[in-house]
Amino acid sequence: MSVGASAVRPLGAADRASVDGILRALRATGIFNDDEVETALELIDEWLQDGDASGYLTYVIEDATGVRGYVCFGPTPMTAGTYDLYWIAVDPATQGRGYGRRLLAFAEAEVERRGGRLLLIETSSQVAYGATIRFYERSGYDLAARIANFYRPGDHKLVYAKEFGSPQSD
Amino acid sequence: MSVGASAVRPLGAADRASVDGILRALRATGIFNDDEVETALELIDEWLQDGDASGYLTYVIEDATGVRGYVCFGPTPMTAGTYDLYWIAVDPATQGRGYGRRLLAFAEAEVERRGGRLLLIETSSQVAYGATIRFYERSGYDLAARIANFYRPGDHKLVYAKEFGSPQSD
Repeated sequence: MSVGASAVRPLGAADRASVDGILRALRATGIFNDDEVETALELIDEWLQDGDASGYLTYVIEDATGVRGYVCFGPTPMTAGTYDLYWIAVDPATQGRGYGRRLLAFAEAEVERRGGRLLLIETSSQVAYGATIRFYERSGYDLAARIANFYRPGDHKLVYAKEFGSPQSD
Repeated sequence: MSVGASAVRPLGAADRASVDGILRALRATGIFNDDEVETALELIDEWLQDGDASGYLTYVIEDATGVRGYVCFGPTPMTAGTYDLYWIAVDPATQGRGYGRRLLAFAEAEVERRGGRLLLIETSSQVAYGATIRFYERSGYDLAARIANFYRPGDHKLVYAKEFGSPQSD
């Protein structure tokens, strides 16, 4: 169960079914709904078709038993150096092994490597309640904004943010 | 110069050149940059191709001399009842006649008619400084969020929000 036995690499066409399975498993636990699974797969298909040019950089984490999670992030349109983390998901059967942390750290390093200075993560106050909030806070993210009743009445949008690099960079 | 001599109607293919001219005039005044003009036109083209299904509902305001402005808004993906106002623009030669207010009021009425309960407007702290902020505040919008350094260092994203209808609606 060593984290060292896992690797992060770009998602390829052969990985789509594995990620689909992970998203469906998360849907079954109530983390994602049908709409969200469909949207997540659409972004994966854009990545498979256009690669970096799609704006949806998508990587999987794989261990000896196969693909266990993925992350999708990309430059925020009409900004200079801001990135969005669109999706991060780990197979519920393999949570607690640090795969989520590893995917997030990979995305952060890749954003910095590409000259990014700000990474944003939007989440629902319902999803975020508990484990997800703690995951982002532990990973150095601050709550940058909260838009009340965004998803539906009583379900708010939270935006977490982490800044990179020297503040004078442009 | 009576506002009564103007009308709001859906943007048609024949109006694209007029809106293009308005966006370029606003670019010349420094309100929009090239990227923004291009993005605005892309949304117009999606509307012209797919109509309501595009998610970019686009209407123009026209007076005796032609199209003087336009507004583009639509349902925010993965929300129930939230709408985004993506673009609102009035020919700089005809500002001060209430055309912007009229386009915004039209969009709000249309959002309510379609069952929307929350309308969001994102703007840059640089664009918003002054007239734009006052326009939204006078129109009943509250500053719901501010994401520092979103567009570039020192240029923040402001999100203005207005709620409609009964708060218990779902």
